[in-house]
Amino acid sequence: MNNKSEHILLSHGSGGKLMHDLVTKSIVSILDNPILTRMDDSAQLTFNGRIAFTTDSYVVKPYFFTGGDIGKLSVCGTVNDLATAGAVPKYLSLSFILEEGFRLDELNVILKSVRQTADEAGVQVVTGDTKVVEKGSTDGIFINTSGLGIIPHGVNVSGSNAKIGDYILLSGTIGDHGIAIMSQREGLRFESPVISDCAPINQLISEAINVSNNIHCLRDPTRGGLATTLNEIAQQSKVGIRIIEQAIPIEQAVQSACEMLGLDPLYVANEGKMVAVVAAPDAEIILNQFHKNKYGTKAKIIGQVVAEHPGRVVMKTPLGTSRILDMPVGELLPRIC
Amino acid sequence: MNNKSEHILLSHGSGGKLMHDLVTKSIVSILDNPILTRMDDSAQLTFNGRIAFTTDSYVVKPYFFTGGDIGKLSVCGTVNDLATAGAVPKYLSLSFILEEGFRLDELNVILKSVRQTADEAGVQVVTGDTKVVEKGSTDGIFINTSGLGIIPHGVNVSGSNAKIGDYILLSGTIGDHGIAIMSQREGLRFESPVISDCAPINQLISEAINVSNNIHCLRDPTRGGLATTLNEIAQQSKVGIRIIEQAIPIEQAVQSACEMLGLDPLYVANEGKMVAVVAAPDAEIILNQFHKNKYGTKAKIIGQVVAEHPGRVVMKTPLGTSRILDMPVGELLPRIC
Repeated sequence: MNNKSEHILLSHGSGGKLMHDLVTKSIVSILDNPILTRMDDSAQLTFNGRIAFTTDSYVVKPYFFTGGDIGKLSVCGTVNDLATAGAVPKYLSLSFILEEGFRLDELNVILKSVRQTADEAGVQVVTGDTKVVEKGSTDGIFINTSGLGIIPHGVNVSGSNAKIGDYILLSGTIGDHGIAIMSQREGLRFESPVISDCAPINQLISEAINVSNNIHCLRDPTRGGLATTLNEIAQQSKVGIRIIEQAIPIEQAVQSACEMLGLDPLYVANEGKMVAVVAAPDAEIILNQFHKNKYGTKAKIIGQVVAEHPGRVVMKTPLGTSRILDMPVGELLPRIC
Repeated sequence: MNNKSEHILLSHGSGGKLMHDLVTKSIVSILDNPILTRMDDSAQLTFNGRIAFTTDSYVVKPYFFTGGDIGKLSVCGTVNDLATAGAVPKYLSLSFILEEGFRLDELNVILKSVRQTADEAGVQVVTGDTKVVEKGSTDGIFINTSGLGIIPHGVNVSGSNAKIGDYILLSGTIGDHGIAIMSQREGLRFESPVISDCAPINQLISEAINVSNNIHCLRDPTRGGLATTLNEIAQQSKVGIRIIEQAIPIEQAVQSACEMLGLDPLYVANEGKMVAVVAAPDAEIILNQFHKNKYGTKAKIIGQVVAEHPGRVVMKTPLGTSRILDMPVGELLPRIC
């Protein structure tokens, strides 16, 4: 440490003057909004009706990656979880666990990322917390965000609502986030670099809800990838799911990286994608709506809900054979989000 | 590791079958309630009116301590923050960051603590998250809880509402939590052991709100202790605060430990106490109400809001001299909560 004041000290988390300065001069000044600047221990909000409430901790490694950083990710992940309830995200909490010695300039970059992504998603950070732990007691920075969103009247979306005959839509390519993180962590270089798909896709979902009342399930295929998400829906809804391998969009670079690393892209994490299970008559309308959003240009119908094999996901391969896609058992990629 | 299945593995956080089993068999089965068991990515709740929203991450070391553990603390801290807004706490999120190798039996003890404290406070854990990081990347277990509470009609409590002439109440003794943690960390033994005051004091606050419309500020003196909390109120409300040293309740064992460790108990953390700034005519009524609650038997009126020295806290000592209580600048006790 050349200059102590440029790094996080234990005192930055101890409740005293240094913490007060960090909170007011860095955190609140970057995230500035009228609710946050009130500086009470709780934010006061007003709601009338149904709301969605969700939480996620982010431990991604490295915390700066191609296509984003832990700040952007911590907004996208929580905003997208709210969108899976059909909710319009409104408010976030933001809680840091920082390692003593963490660079203040890096914290500022991460905070600006939080602000920029929150602005894009239309949400405000209204309450927060900062803890500092001794050097060696953690890995740089961990973030928790919790989120609140408004569920519009008439919207009823749940992992248990998939119906036989429904179509399964996927909003874009698979595996981008996981492969971006992995290749950076392992120092791998590809001809064209793989960029994380990390993005807030709540607007994409709102637009779809505006054109259709027949969206039954929404879920973002993060940890465990597309295969895990489809298994969760099949189990929660007690239905079978059949997908077509050729229909699943994937970037060539991601495909090559997966082959090289021995990974199945169906199990690799995404951070800006949505699986939508929708009534068959509305599938084309929703697909067209997805295509109009910059995060949905590569959306596809990838399969259907079926009466056979309830609780299981089966994929039809280009050779015409069928493959059962199980829940993953072994070790997947750690610290992907 | 003698038996792998008794410890947290990286796969417990990777989104696959092991994580699914951990979540359903341990976490959800212990915290069991109809909203949580729905197992969607977001909980769905209904509100009509003003709500309070708060978040805290807990990194206390050691995570088992005399009078509680990180599970109990993570409920109390957030519930008490909601109470500082005059809110009735209703729902919590619960997010774990676990170190690979963490003992599953310890996790279960912590989860049972969460459940028991949540039951006492009258709140439900409705959504959650579990991340696992490699051995050495963190320090056993970190927990984040975010909370939602309902602010009753007519309640208007804020750190900026203190008025000149108001009385300052403290719900009990100071320094118990910080000294309990410190003495355990340092392996110190006293004649009578110091027990953390960690407790959910939302009922104590609700009872006070029921007997008085004239509670202006509520704040729990956690990190930075009583002196920091009073400074925050003085600054937010732009008033002076004068307190009487002899009026501040403190256990003899805590006093002795502070003298031995060279700590000022006014700056030591509490986890089951509340500072209330109230209109003078209601002070006795509220004090009597505090005394009826098991967490308020030692409550005292400790001082008054004054027009002099706005933004500052001054303490009158038994010798009749005055001492300015500043915001702490240097290093306080780290990882106290």
